[in-house]
Amino acid sequence: MDRVTPDGPLRTAEIIAVGSELLGSTRIDTNSLFLADRLASLGIALRAKAVVGDDRVMLAQVFSQSLIRADLVILTGGLGPTDDDVTREVVAEALGLEFTEDPAIVAAIARRFARRNMRMPDNNRRQAQVPRGAIVLDNPNGTAPGLFIAHQRQAIVLLPGPPRELQPLMTRLCAGPLGERAGRERIYTTCAFVTGLSESHVEELIQPIYSQWSTAAAPIQTTILAAPGQIEIHLSLRSESEGAARARLDTARSALADALGNAVFSTDGRFLEEVVGDLLKARRLTIATAESCTGGLLMSRLTDVPGSSAYVLGGIVVYSNDLKTTLVDVPVASIAAHGAVSEPVALAMAEGARSRTGAHIGVGVTGIAGPDGGTPQKPVGTVAIAVVAPEGAPQVRMFSFPGGRPQVKHQATQAAMDMVRRMLNSEW
Amino acid sequence: MDRVTPDGPLRTAEIIAVGSELLGSTRIDTNSLFLADRLASLGIALRAKAVVGDDRVMLAQVFSQSLIRADLVILTGGLGPTDDDVTREVVAEALGLEFTEDPAIVAAIARRFARRNMRMPDNNRRQAQVPRGAIVLDNPNGTAPGLFIAHQRQAIVLLPGPPRELQPLMTRLCAGPLGERAGRERIYTTCAFVTGLSESHVEELIQPIYSQWSTAAAPIQTTILAAPGQIEIHLSLRSESEGAARARLDTARSALADALGNAVFSTDGRFLEEVVGDLLKARRLTIATAESCTGGLLMSRLTDVPGSSAYVLGGIVVYSNDLKTTLVDVPVASIAAHGAVSEPVALAMAEGARSRTGAHIGVGVTGIAGPDGGTPQKPVGTVAIAVVAPEGAPQVRMFSFPGGRPQVKHQATQAAMDMVRRMLNSEW
Repeated sequence: MDRVTPDGPLRTAEIIAVGSELLGSTRIDTNSLFLADRLASLGIALRAKAVVGDDRVMLAQVFSQSLIRADLVILTGGLGPTDDDVTREVVAEALGLEFTEDPAIVAAIARRFARRNMRMPDNNRRQAQVPRGAIVLDNPNGTAPGLFIAHQRQAIVLLPGPPRELQPLMTRLCAGPLGERAGRERIYTTCAFVTGLSESHVEELIQPIYSQWSTAAAPIQTTILAAPGQIEIHLSLRSESEGAARARLDTARSALADALGNAVFSTDGRFLEEVVGDLLKARRLTIATAESCTGGLLMSRLTDVPGSSAYVLGGIVVYSNDLKTTLVDVPVASIAAHGAVSEPVALAMAEGARSRTGAHIGVGVTGIAGPDGGTPQKPVGTVAIAVVAPEGAPQVRMFSFPGGRPQVKHQATQAAMDMVRRMLNSEW
Repeated sequence: MDRVTPDGPLRTAEIIAVGSELLGSTRIDTNSLFLADRLASLGIALRAKAVVGDDRVMLAQVFSQSLIRADLVILTGGLGPTDDDVTREVVAEALGLEFTEDPAIVAAIARRFARRNMRMPDNNRRQAQVPRGAIVLDNPNGTAPGLFIAHQRQAIVLLPGPPRELQPLMTRLCAGPLGERAGRERIYTTCAFVTGLSESHVEELIQPIYSQWSTAAAPIQTTILAAPGQIEIHLSLRSESEGAARARLDTARSALADALGNAVFSTDGRFLEEVVGDLLKARRLTIATAESCTGGLLMSRLTDVPGSSAYVLGGIVVYSNDLKTTLVDVPVASIAAHGAVSEPVALAMAEGARSRTGAHIGVGVTGIAGPDGGTPQKPVGTVAIAVVAPEGAPQVRMFSFPGGRPQVKHQATQAAMDMVRRMLNSEW
């Protein structure tokens, strides 16, 4: 881990969120997401985050460890007026700084109370205690001011916990003292989203490629995030030149796309439902679905996209076998011969969705989402998906998805949309 | 900070989430909420949480600090098959434990791949490396097993990052080696879920009640969590006696339920789709839907419940006005006279869903999910919902939901299910 070089810019950061409520089972520190984004925009790498309760000893330990490692330490929360609020004192003590009361802060807090026809409680004077040398950041949305402390070659920032107080203060810091002490380097990112391959297979295909980047003079960082039915490859690069960074990232992303081929469905952050929607719009086509095991989730995801009414006509959820026949015209004989989860039934559902709605493209999904209903021949996770269009051959495939009911439903919708995508990308 | 006494129970814990993706601006460690809840149930106090990237040096530092402070250290993530996954190695090295390959794990991983007709990549053998003396927890939902390491008077737990892999392993640990080493005091909890009231309204009704509990000798903690369309009230109590704790919590929950009346839809953690499903099953009734703005989400949520095929027949998503007429028999004149988002159209959709499917209960939902399509008279968030049944008067209501497209869709499904619930709870 590289520490700051003498008089060098701030390059690494850690965040410490203070508050016992953040250690329960209901509240989470979301401020760090906002802070991570702002830090990245300054080219400052977030290296670690911590959450500690309102506990002097614990906070002192965690803070002193962060000070050993990071150029910048941001503490959020614990700046309130009560005895529980220990952040100011712990930081000042660790840095060996004395406090002085800032009369301007006292006056500002008193005014806040006066506006609500209240007297300032004595407690609140604690919020006016400022470590010597700190820059005070007025907080228009609360009583606790933010503090920026330049300490030798490091910087320490204290911000109030409520997001609507923290965010404007952080924005001002980035435009002010933090931005001035950040380097000229910024972090640039790009991504590629993949479906239809397992995480290990993606890894096998691209590891030889990205491993070279990580050892380059200016390394490209590769992060692979796997969720059921979707693998995200994120690339990031630290650079002083936006143009050079973008060019390198574009080249890198193309190399991944070449290795992964048609499994890459998006290189601009769009999800599959948006990609499919954009393809449908571009080709002025409409779509309709007939769903069994996905129970409407496919249609719901397609219509999650704003403006999807331009190409989504509708869909039919046929959970019972009777409805497969009466609502989308699946022949009774076909269900009897092949079972409800079969390629012929999925095809008939796709055709029925088209003919009943007048859409150009019909999708049929039938499967076993579980936990019940599986058989040795067709275990839970077996799903048949068909896509039919006015031209080109009908597509139909059997899948076997791992996971529980929600994962099977989700992966089936991913696979169905991916079949539509591949069909729309083909030539007909 | 109290450390474990010789041979004493595990009393304090820290959690370390490992993964560079958790340091960006998009992903957050939510596992710690579940873990905090499970730890609380064992009476183990969570003292700190940390997030570190896939970085050996940083993880080693943070882990060794936690080991100094806490009786129990839980690490999540970083157990995958790639070079990035460093948790196993760092923990074993810090504790001075050697690795051996566990052939049972290799076989289990190979079987997982074989079930999907895939070959196990060599990478995955890394997941079978077990520190000497560790208890291996089979992971039925993934390739990375969990590990429990008893180390002198402390315990170290390694869990895979994906929630559906982590949660069952943690549950087994609590029933097994973790539970055995915890103290006699446990934290007991109960809850009440509410829909159809605002957070401030709920607060007004119950604050006078719960404020008394918090000052009792053994205080009951009350936490209110508000999400669009659902408010959760969680009560918790620390006690050595399960019987006494349960009795007090039951009394407390009843007091809340009395104050909130029919707005409480669940006091056992069931979500609305499960409550509605149980009511339908108990009354041997079937349901079908006709959805416009919710785009299939209502049907998808109803079918998220395992076994829902017993009462869900199907549904029709009629996104275009034409399909409202051709698929669920909404009179063209009704759309022309009242607009597609209106009580008469919602009623006709509910009737159409019933008559087309033969279900006992029909639900119609039509509205403006946004961001486009709003008018001064019917702004974004306007939704008409109707429920019809073989007996009793048809129900129809206009709603005005705040938030963006996903929030409007979600709240509309909550409101629709709540109307069904109230109808099923009435006398017909």
